[in-house]
Parts: sequence; C-alpha cells; structure tokens
Amino acid sequence: MREFGRSEEEILNELRSLWDRRIPYERVFSSMCTRPHPVAVKAFMLYIESNLGDFGIFPAVKELEDRVVEMTADMLNLNGFSGYMTSGGTEANIQALRAFRNLKGKGNFIAPESRHFSIDKAADVLGVEMRLVPLNDEYQMDVSCLEEMIDDETFGIVALLGSTELGQIDPLDEISKIASEHGIPLHVDGAFGAFVVPFLYPDFRFPEHLSSVSGDPHKMGMSVIPSGVLLFSDEEFLEALKIETPYLTTRHQYSLPGTRPGASAAATYAVMEHLGRRGYRKIVEKCMRNTRVLIELMSELEFYPAIEPKMNVVVFKTDEVDRIRKELMKRRWLISKSFRPLGMRFVIMPHVEEENLKLFVEDLKRIL
Amino acid sequence: MREFGRSEEEILNELRSLWDRRIPYERVFSSMCTRPHPVAVKAFMLYIESNLGDFGIFPAVKELEDRVVEMTADMLNLNGFSGYMTSGGTEANIQALRAFRNLKGKGNFIAPESRHFSIDKAADVLGVEMRLVPLNDEYQMDVSCLEEMIDDETFGIVALLGSTELGQIDPLDEISKIASEHGIPLHVDGAFGAFVVPFLYPDFRFPEHLSSVSGDPHKMGMSVIPSGVLLFSDEEFLEALKIETPYLTTRHQYSLPGTRPGASAAATYAVMEHLGRRGYRKIVEKCMRNTRVLIELMSELEFYPAIEPKMNVVVFKTDEVDRIRKELMKRRWLISKSFRPLGMRFVIMPHVEEENLKLFVEDLKRIL
Repeated sequence: MREFGRSEEEILNELRSLWDRRIPYERVFSSMCTRPHPVAVKAFMLYIESNLGDFGIFPAVKELEDRVVEMTADMLNLNGFSGYMTSGGTEANIQALRAFRNLKGKGNFIAPESRHFSIDKAADVLGVEMRLVPLNDEYQMDVSCLEEMIDDETFGIVALLGSTELGQIDPLDEISKIASEHGIPLHVDGAFGAFVVPFLYPDFRFPEHLSSVSGDPHKMGMSVIPSGVLLFSDEEFLEALKIETPYLTTRHQYSLPGTRPGASAAATYAVMEHLGRRGYRKIVEKCMRNTRVLIELMSELEFYPAIEPKMNVVVFKTDEVDRIRKELMKRRWLISKSFRPLGMRFVIMPHVEEENLKLFVEDLKRIL
Repeated sequence: MREFGRSEEEILNELRSLWDRRIPYERVFSSMCTRPHPVAVKAFMLYIESNLGDFGIFPAVKELEDRVVEMTADMLNLNGFSGYMTSGGTEANIQALRAFRNLKGKGNFIAPESRHFSIDKAADVLGVEMRLVPLNDEYQMDVSCLEEMIDDETFGIVALLGSTELGQIDPLDEISKIASEHGIPLHVDGAFGAFVVPFLYPDFRFPEHLSSVSGDPHKMGMSVIPSGVLLFSDEEFLEALKIETPYLTTRHQYSLPGTRPGASAAATYAVMEHLGRRGYRKIVEKCMRNTRVLIELMSELEFYPAIEPKMNVVVFKTDEVDRIRKELMKRRWLISKSFRPLGMRFVIMPHVEEENLKLFVEDLKRIL
C-alpha cells in the first residue's frame, strides 16, 4: 500500500482504461447477468450509503425491501409468501436449505443432477449430504427415481425453474406431490427463471406444496448486482434463520451477510416499478425472438437445439465445443460450454441484438 | 406487481422523499459503516455492470480484486498472505471457519464471549459447536481459560482485532502461542480493526502462527457496501473452499456468493489508492481526536469510558441506557447499547464532527 495517495483523476483514468479490456455485453452469450436498467443504476446511486443490515438508520430501505419481496411474490402468484432480499441465487439456495435443515435436523437433501453448482456449495457449507436424482431424456429431474432416494434423514428437495445449462423446468407438480406425501419441504431454484416464466407462460402456477422459491433481480430482473430474492411459504422457515443482533438498530436478522446494500433494494424496487409486467414481458419477448433467430441461423450450419428451449437459454450439441469456444474467444465472442448435453450454450439476454447474432454466426462459419 | 410501469422521474422522486426519512450519518454514533469516499462511489459507478463471479468477461475486476487483496496484506504486514474480496465480515468469518472445518473435519471452534454475532451465525450455518471463552477485566479473551476448552475436535480459534462492543483487541500473541502448540488454525476477526490498527499503532505486528485475517473496506476502509477482504496464510485454506464452476468463464470459485459485484473491487481499489497510508492515518487521527472530545464532554456529565479506548469505539457504563437511547432517538440521535458492560456505545466514524458531538451532549444533558 502506497504512503502517498494518487489523484482521483489519475485513478479513474486508470480504471477507465482497464475497463476497456472487457468483452462488451453485446458479444457475451454466456452470462445470465446483463447490463442493469438505467433506472436501477440511478436508484442504486441515491441509496449507495445505506445498509439494509442496520435499517433503523434508513427505514426506507427496509420498506423498499419489503415491497420488492411483495412484488416478487405477486409476480409469481405466491400468495402469502414472504422473505428477504439476498445477495443472489447462491445465498438463497444456502439459506433455503439451511432453514430446512435447522427445522428437520441434519441429514441429506435431494436435487436433480442438473442443479447449479451453488447447490454443491450449499451442501459443503452446511455440512450435509447432497443426493442427486438422474435426469430424464428432456434433462429434467427423473421423477421415477426420486422416491427411492428419500429416507428419514431427508430434510429437503430442490427443483429447478430454469436449469443453468438448458433453462429446463423440472416437473414441479409431480415432485411437489412426492415431497408432500413424505412431508419434506420443497425449494424451487428460480434464480434465472423467476423473472422469465411469469411473462412467457402467464398460466404457469406453482404447485401447492412448496416451501421456498428464489429469483434473481440481478439476472432477468435487470437490477444491479447484488440483488436476489428468497421467498418462503411460512414464517417458520425465516424464524429458523434468525440470529440476534445486538449493537444494531435492529433486533435480529435472517440474511447470510450482516451489512448489506440498501441500494440493491432501491435499485430493484425502481426497475420493477418502472417496467411493470408489461415492460418485463417486452424484454422476455425480445429475448425469445432472438433465441429463435439464433436457432434459425444455427440450423443453416446444421446445429440444432438439444431440447426445444423453455426460455432464453439454448444448447447446440457438438463435441467440438472446446475448440469452437477458443476460436470464438480469439474473435472476442463469449459462449459457454454445456456438459450435459455436451455442446455450445447460449443465454440470450436483453443485451443481445439480432444484428450481433448475425455477425456472430458469420464468424462461427469461418472457424468450422 | 403493476401491469403498467411508472415513469422514471416519478419513481426517483419517490425514492428521494423516502430517503429523506433517514437519520443522516452526522447524527449516527451507532454504526461501523460510514458514507463511502466519493472516489469509491465514482469507481463503483464505472464498473456497476461487472460480475466478479464471471471475470473472464471483465478481466480487470479480477486484477483489481487481486490488487486490493495484496494492498490489504501489505497494509497489515502479512507477507505472503492471499485471499479474496468478500461481501463483508460475516462472509469472511463463515468462510475462514468453513475452511478450517473442511481441513480438520467437523467438531468445534473457540471464540471469545465478545465475538460478533456473525460468529454465532457461522456456527449455525456450518452446523458446528461454538465454545465461548470468558473475558478478563479488560473485556478481552481470558487466555487462562483457553487451553482447557480445546479438545481433539477443535478445528479453529477466533480472536478479535477490535471487538464490536468496545473496539478491544484480544491478546493475540498469547492466543496464537496456545493455538500453535495445539496445531489449531487461528482466525483474527479484524472487520473493524484492520483498517484502524495499522494507522494508529504502526508497530503492531500479527503473531507468527496465524491462518486468516478479515478486514472490511466498507467499514473504516471508506469503500462502498458490500466490500470485505479475507486473507489466508496458506493456499490450502482457499483450496478447502474451492467449488468447480461449469458454464462460467472461470474454472472454480472460493467465494460464498456466485455472482458478486466487480464494482466493489473497483471502488475499494480506488479509495485505497487515493488515500494511501497517509490518507487513512489522517482519517483515523480525526476519529481518535473526536473520540477524546466525546470522552471529555461525557466526563462533564460524569460518564466515564468502561475501558481506555483502543480505537474509535467507546462505551460509557450506565444502567439507564435503554431510556437514554429512546429519548435520544426522539431527538434523532443514534447511539447503541452495549451489553457487556451495560452502557452507551459510540462508534466515532469519519462522518462524526466535533460540532455534532457538542450538540449531542447538549441534548443528552436535557434528558438526564
């Protein structure tokens, strides 16, 4: 650490030139994050000094968090659900499983093989066993294998509303039915899907036996990182996470972090209020339109989607994915590798424009 | 959630008027957070769309994180330590203990009774036993009680560089010696103290047997929330936290969150580079000067510090703290309650001005 500081101007210039090394989002087809909406950024700035972990100082941020939670529950038709704003999907998955474990005692939980790696992280952090259910031909949890994996030590089941690799949706009704019969809490990981499904499938409804759902405003919600939401069906789950907080202006907290940005609540509130259902619907429609454009363009190169995309995530099977990715990287295009099935994976976020998909496919042709 | 969105202007006006309900930091003596430095805010804005969890897209943010980690290690004279940027002290405490537990197998860890509540949270999350060492007359860990609490299942010891209630420093050399004799990793929670001690006690050195140290740029480091640092003495601890990350531009990650703000790395880099040691020294000197001003003013009311403050945190013993706090709250002053000893607790952050301390004491007189 230097003894004498450098001028603000010098540092900001350095940061600007470092920033120019990034791959601009227009060329990124690998990320579930995107550029935040300008209204979210402005709201974040207004509240940048606020701490949701000590909201006696800033009562507004608690109110904004509550409104975001309420709006998200309403968006998902989850009547009576309540919760809090997390730092994202990983915290939500850890916390849902922690609540279930704390209520049921230690043991194991069950998730599909298609789970996000944050579920593995949760198992390690919580020090519990993770049991993985094989997938069916559609890369969903194979429900016929679920029941035999449950035992007396099973404290929770995880299902996916939008798998990371394929955007696939697990058979939630069937999973919920089995979970209900065994009295086991069900967590739905909707980190990506929660801000897509309500706008793409307006008739979608969650099953009745359901304990928690996560959804990330900092993914398809167009908010600022870090912004997540975790919803519980019953107060008892939140209570199972409660830690007393002396010294603060609050009495207890449920979140994994202590100090946490109130600015995230302001940003998420702002963008959800600004877009409304109609705004999100337009964004999701654009993403789906571009997903179809990509499928069309790829079919000309004889690449076909591994499954009919359920949302704006699509995988084209190929054994050559490593070489292709590397070559694309040289041309400054980012796609990711899917493992199951092996292939090129695309997330068609709001920052993706049709024009860029065409340029991309031109470049792809050159390296095949 | 509304069908039609509201205008940006309307929402931002609403947020501004909600913001006005806060207690301005000038009247807050209860928080370990403060207004971030303007250069940190500007840097945060430049990098607001970046994700440290997927830094192949934004190579700069990984580089900035590495520089922050290096500068922090250098600031603390922790040669050869490495680590990563956390969301704050809670994540750091959870992760240090998780690494120790993963390496040593499950069991128990030991912390002083003066530990921050995030240590209780870590015990709950990790599903391990927390053993609390009583305090001596100076509210430090009573080292004479430590050894008898260690058993074969003890995987870690926590000591404090700046306790939350009193800013007290545990006898690190003695604790380290015992930990070393038993081959137990030692974590020092410096969430608050790490950005104070190097500037107040330039001769301070950590003991040799030391496995990890945390420090929060979003407290006395003047950065934006969320910004924390966790340092490990040895790569093996980081390795014990490693989770594979398919789909991303990275191969694995160590952090508790997946997606996390690259903007925090940019903000922290900017403020550390801008202030340098000299800048932080000035800030700490101001805080200590004001701490002495407060002690002087309080002595006129016959309130005396429970211990000679080791840093800019001070407690004045009184049984009447609940009534006093309530009355002060009506006058829009925030202090906090310390439990051990029972009293009025003040954190004299950089936002505290002498003028406000005088106004505060005038108001305090009126309610005694």
